Amino acid sequence: MSLIEELLAVNERYAATFQKGELPLPPAKKLAIVTCMDARIDPARILGLEEGDAHVIRNAGGRTAEALRSLIISQQLLGTRTIMVIHHTDCGMLTFENADLQRRLREQFGVDASAIDFLPFKDLEQSVRDDIALLRSSPFLLKESEIVGFIYDVHSGRLLPVH
Amino acid sequence: MSLIEELLAVNERYAATFQKGELPLPPAKKLAIVTCMDARIDPARILGLEEGDAHVIRNAGGRTAEALRSLIISQQLLGTRTIMVIHHTDCGMLTFENADLQRRLREQFGVDASAIDFLPFKDLEQSVRDDIALLRSSPFLLKESEIVGFIYDVHSGRLLPVH
Repeated sequence: MSLIEELLAVNERYAATFQKGELPLPPAKKLAIVTCMDARIDPARILGLEEGDAHVIRNAGGRTAEALRSLIISQQLLGTRTIMVIHHTDCGMLTFENADLQRRLREQFGVDASAIDFLPFKDLEQSVRDDIALLRSSPFLLKESEIVGFIYDVHSGRLLPVH
Repeated sequence: MSLIEELLAVNERYAATFQKGELPLPPAKKLAIVTCMDARIDPARILGLEEGDAHVIRNAGGRTAEALRSLIISQQLLGTRTIMVIHHTDCGMLTFENADLQRRLREQFGVDASAIDFLPFKDLEQSVRDDIALLRSSPFLLKESEIVGFIYDVHSGRLLPVH
């Protein structure tokens, strides 16, 4: 069986006993989470979230600059009022610089990727602070929304607050 | 207890029995998923994924234009070779146009949001096809990667292939 066939077979079993077909669109906990795409992070399990509870926005690094469009929609159209920014230990974004990846793309594909900022970072705690500061200074987000930052430790499964 | 306190209490219990602290960084299934931030979608449950299996990229609508940076990193630095694009029924992105949200932001905050494309869409299946076409035409992604599209039915829990 191919990977996709295997995943669809699992989905058939999920759908067979599915009982959450009438959930409302707005998140029940009025919560939006911004976190990394990292495979070791399962936001629902880490925080005990059920289907319907929270918006989950994920990208490489959990960078809020790229989450702004989604957060505006989340607040304006779907009523969320708390934002959790969660970066994590052992993040791939700590391992390279823009120039490294741009060179690699040029060598591999013969393309110019110098216009792409891959948003890597060198200091994990500072990356959370920077990303929260970016949200707090955005003229497009609600001033009264609560914005909190964390580092998720992939070795312990624990969330550590960033102040 | 506040929402954040409540979530951190759940996380304490998760961490207390955590046994996945030694997972490697690259996704075991060499899979990257692009899907919507919608609260009703839990990619891990829908597809039976465990921690460590797949990158999960999420934003409003599951739009691939905004996932490109993450997908390049996913392929180049972390070895993924299959991309699943999953949009879903009853998506908020079907309910508004750019001008609506731009006007709302102007009225609420007195700001000019006319430069922001919120990437809404009018046709769900077409949005998946468009987003796959965008990935296939990208000079920055591997030509040999498998790219497949689906619609997730939030009422049945079932994934439907888009051809």
